[in-house]
Amino acid sequence: MATIGFIGLGNMGGPMARNLIKAGHSLKVFDLSEEAMNFVVQSGAEAAKSAADAATNVDAVVTMLPVGDNVRSVYVDAGVLDAVSEGTLMIESSTIDVETARAMHAAAAERGYQMVDAPVSGGTAGADAGTLTFMCGGEAAAFAQARPILECMGKNIVHCGAAGLGQVTKICNNMLTGINSLAVAEAFVMGEKLGVDRKILYDVISTSSGDSFILSNACPMPGTLPTAASSNGFKPGFAAKLMLKDLRLSQAAAQAAGTATPLGAAATAAYAMHIDQGNGDLDVSSIIKLLKPDV
Amino acid sequence: MATIGFIGLGNMGGPMARNLIKAGHSLKVFDLSEEAMNFVVQSGAEAAKSAADAATNVDAVVTMLPVGDNVRSVYVDAGVLDAVSEGTLMIESSTIDVETARAMHAAAAERGYQMVDAPVSGGTAGADAGTLTFMCGGEAAAFAQARPILECMGKNIVHCGAAGLGQVTKICNNMLTGINSLAVAEAFVMGEKLGVDRKILYDVISTSSGDSFILSNACPMPGTLPTAASSNGFKPGFAAKLMLKDLRLSQAAAQAAGTATPLGAAATAAYAMHIDQGNGDLDVSSIIKLLKPDV
Amino acid sequence: MATIGFIGLGNMGGPMARNLIKAGHSLKVFDLSEEAMNFVVQSGAEAAKSAADAATNVDAVVTMLPVGDNVRSVYVDAGVLDAVSEGTLMIESSTIDVETARAMHAAAAERGYQMVDAPVSGGTAGADAGTLTFMCGGEAAAFAQARPILECMGKNIVHCGAAGLGQVTKICNNMLTGINSLAVAEAFVMGEKLGVDRKILYDVISTSSGDSFILSNACPMPGTLPTAASSNGFKPGFAAKLMLKDLRLSQAAAQAAGTATPLGAAATAAYAMHIDQGNGDLDVSSIIKLLKPDV
Amino acid sequence: MATIGFIGLGNMGGPMARNLIKAGHSLKVFDLSEEAMNFVVQSGAEAAKSAADAATNVDAVVTMLPVGDNVRSVYVDAGVLDAVSEGTLMIESSTIDVETARAMHAAAAERGYQMVDAPVSGGTAGADAGTLTFMCGGEAAAFAQARPILECMGKNIVHCGAAGLGQVTKICNNMLTGINSLAVAEAFVMGEKLGVDRKILYDVISTSSGDSFILSNACPMPGTLPTAASSNGFKPGFAAKLMLKDLRLSQAAAQAAGTATPLGAAATAAYAMHIDQGNGDLDVSSIIKLLKPDV
Repeated sequence: MATIGFIGLGNMGGPMARNLIKAGHSLKVFDLSEEAMNFVVQSGAEAAKSAADAATNVDAVVTMLPVGDNVRSVYVDAGVLDAVSEGTLMIESSTIDVETARAMHAAAAERGYQMVDAPVSGGTAGADAGTLTFMCGGEAAAFAQARPILECMGKNIVHCGAAGLGQVTKICNNMLTGINSLAVAEAFVMGEKLGVDRKILYDVISTSSGDSFILSNACPMPGTLPTAASSNGFKPGFAAKLMLKDLRLSQAAAQAAGTATPLGAAATAAYAMHIDQGNGDLDVSSIIKLLKPDV
Repeated sequence: MATIGFIGLGNMGGPMARNLIKAGHSLKVFDLSEEAMNFVVQSGAEAAKSAADAATNVDAVVTMLPVGDNVRSVYVDAGVLDAVSEGTLMIESSTIDVETARAMHAAAAERGYQMVDAPVSGGTAGADAGTLTFMCGGEAAAFAQARPILECMGKNIVHCGAAGLGQVTKICNNMLTGINSLAVAEAFVMGEKLGVDRKILYDVISTSSGDSFILSNACPMPGTLPTAASSNGFKPGFAAKLMLKDLRLSQAAAQAAGTATPLGAAATAAYAMHIDQGNGDLDVSSIIKLLKPDV
Repeated sequence: MATIGFIGLGNMGGPMARNLIKAGHSLKVFDLSEEAMNFVVQSGAEAAKSAADAATNVDAVVTMLPVGDNVRSVYVDAGVLDAVSEGTLMIESSTIDVETARAMHAAAAERGYQMVDAPVSGGTAGADAGTLTFMCGGEAAAFAQARPILECMGKNIVHCGAAGLGQVTKICNNMLTGINSLAVAEAFVMGEKLGVDRKILYDVISTSSGDSFILSNACPMPGTLPTAASSNGFKPGFAAKLMLKDLRLSQAAAQAAGTATPLGAAATAAYAMHIDQGNGDLDVSSIIKLLKPDV
Repeated sequence: MATIGFIGLGNMGGPMARNLIKAGHSLKVFDLSEEAMNFVVQSGAEAAKSAADAATNVDAVVTMLPVGDNVRSVYVDAGVLDAVSEGTLMIESSTIDVETARAMHAAAAERGYQMVDAPVSGGTAGADAGTLTFMCGGEAAAFAQARPILECMGKNIVHCGAAGLGQVTKICNNMLTGINSLAVAEAFVMGEKLGVDRKILYDVISTSSGDSFILSNACPMPGTLPTAASSNGFKPGFAAKLMLKDLRLSQAAAQAAGTATPLGAAATAAYAMHIDQGNGDLDVSSIIKLLKPDV
């Protein structure tokens, strides 16, 4: 069993760290919120004094932070890159822009260290249950070293390629997720306005060529899926503002790739308008309100 | 067994008519193309002299025509509505605009006849195999009468509601299909340009929240699915120009509904540009060429 | 001086009819609203008993109605086409879909009569002042006959071509107007959020390559133009719901033309969402609220 | 008269430098291309050995470079920030992302130096004629110091606000320019496909509410304006690939601002597809080919 520094203990990081403890690892943890720290310390983790402290004398560091600037702060400004020693593997699990991800890999490589970018899908439910998917970027040896650790937190661990390609894969997936949520909303609002019952639309399309994971599992039209957020007051789930963050990452990625994403761009604009109207904390499926405010 | 008039014997109508013959029905068939007529007559149908003739002294009429104007021509100008008699059920299976569909229902009702709009999904393969999905609109009694006939040609027969609602349901489904084809193309072109292998993208996203029927069954990126049109020179399958037709129907439907379809609108514009560049006869998945001409 | 039947005496038709009276013509007028009738009768018009009555024994008929269905009703159902006599020129000034406009021309031609489609720009201010622009479609002889009548109501009378092409020209212009209002809103919201004062943005862009009639005359950012609707609580001017009507006509026209309008489509979706949120009666420039609800 | 270092002597920088010489300033110039150097040296400039050399012992430095990374390279890596001395004013005239512009201001301020971001509009014609517009960001004192130098190269020198706000203003203007070029193309292709002569469209819309600087001065429909690039084989003018660069900057700015730009996003996607098809070196007005390839 390993000693692991874990930095960032929020809704995702907290349960992930606890799953590492359950698997028998020793954890040194750090978060700016004392409450978040306590949650994990009560499960058996050692409280570190700082991010750098959490990264000192450990076999691996896992970071799970909100945005790219946080990641840069923790690794560069807060000194994690200086605190780690030879052989420490860095696992960066935040969902961030590809440019920052690659810059962190490069900064690690410069010092002779290995890093894996390993963003996740599966949400807080997957983090709790230890069933996350990890999309990993980095060298094969680093990925091999990361895998047993990631397997304590997830069930689908994929090596997507070189540095940053975990992030790229994640953002391609989430761009589709965001597009599909809006697209399904468009079809259901239109269909029902023209007279088709929403349950009939659901039954037909969920078994036809227009189906998608979102339609079948998170249909934005209330009343089609009893367990979906849309049938439960749009309580997240995955907040709309986080979807906007991911869509913006997708647009930055499209710029970096020099490629057109006409639907990705239209979806990004739609979520931005939706959130401007005060809906950021609702579930992503609330995007249907942009088309039908009284849904 | 019934006597059925069948008008429109193209790529879809031909095999559908033959499945009715196989099931034991007597067919009177008509098409403007002699070749199309012969194909079905050789299977045992009687050749009618005109559309009106095909509709005379039959238990049911089935029409399967390219566009709404054809439907109006056949029922009104070519005299089908005048040729049918009390008790003849009209089954209109073309994919057409909701407005024309409703006008035909009304014209039938005025004369005291019943009609079912029953557009299909499943393509030529489904027409051959008799596994089409029929999305039906019309009164419950008419639907009940149509069902046993439709069951000779399809395996999923759904009553979507009142007159025209079969068309509405179909067009909601196909709008999603068109959006999803473009969306998947965007994600795969972007992901690969940034360095992720297309097969890895496929493996990860097809098991994640970004999945869709299109991604898993008709992925537009060549080489991801050996059987997909994209891996076979974009030979249709479902021609891009037919997808544009359906997307335009979706935009007419959105106008009729008074609802916004930002992604449906962007997808319609994209397919229109794609077809303007001479790609209308390629499979719908060729939309990826709009983003990556040398794919 | 001529005897002219005038049907449709609303915010536009009323003042237009009065300008014909001022110019010395004799008017027989009709509107479903008695109040609208009185307004013009007090100026010297004769009240007709019906639309057909207004079209009987006159040299010309002018119609100014809200939507295409009204036009069809008045000419066909209410009997105007049957009431007119040889030599009566029909001037159809409503802004309607090209298809209906052409159908009305054809119905007139069938009876041996001449029609001019002559939609206007210039708003209620232009209608009052007699400074409207008329965009006319129809045969050259009919246009020549219409011109002196139109010159009593407008100052710019253009023959755009054959039947329906006045409508086409109008809708091309108004599609640009709608796009430009949203585009200017996007630029100003973005610029100010990043720190540039809105008046500086106005001064620079109104003299640069990004300028447009809308920016310089109806800038949607409040406080840039004291006389603009945006600086006066978005009181119309030209109501947002009328812009949505015109944008929808543009999308129907794009479908008829078989052409892609990516920005026209995105703008249509945006105005539809804006109006869904209850803003239809505000000035078109209120579209800025979609981007910045608290503007 | 001042001694001025000028770095970046391309199609814009070259004529700008020569206008400074004409006004009586002494120039030390640098460019990686010897040919570009010679062009200005023959007009009387001193050839510097490096970017840093051009910035040594001068009253002001002007930089005119293609993209943000070049600007960072010149100021940071090539040592311009280390070469300048107290009192040297840095004028950064490249069109670049706001983030880099602000980073350069901050790096200058850290060393106690003043900088002005001063991107231009007016194209190569304006650079030749000395009639450029300069949109400036920075402190009032720095702007006051820059103004007499800029007046040798332009006729409209505007202080847009604090550091970076020159870039913001420019990018707001150019986003509108890009949108308007595509919008005008949409309207003209649609109008002509429906039968209106392009010159009639031009005459009517250029005097109506749909007018824009682009329509009246650079209409993308060939044959409407004899002097426009569209009437001259789409020879730039302003290359489509540069418009895509500016639109991408606009989308990065929109992300930084946290604001939706539905039309800016759709236009960016359209230009990206257009350039993917090999049209980057044509004039920006060639975007019309996306809608009508055989224009």
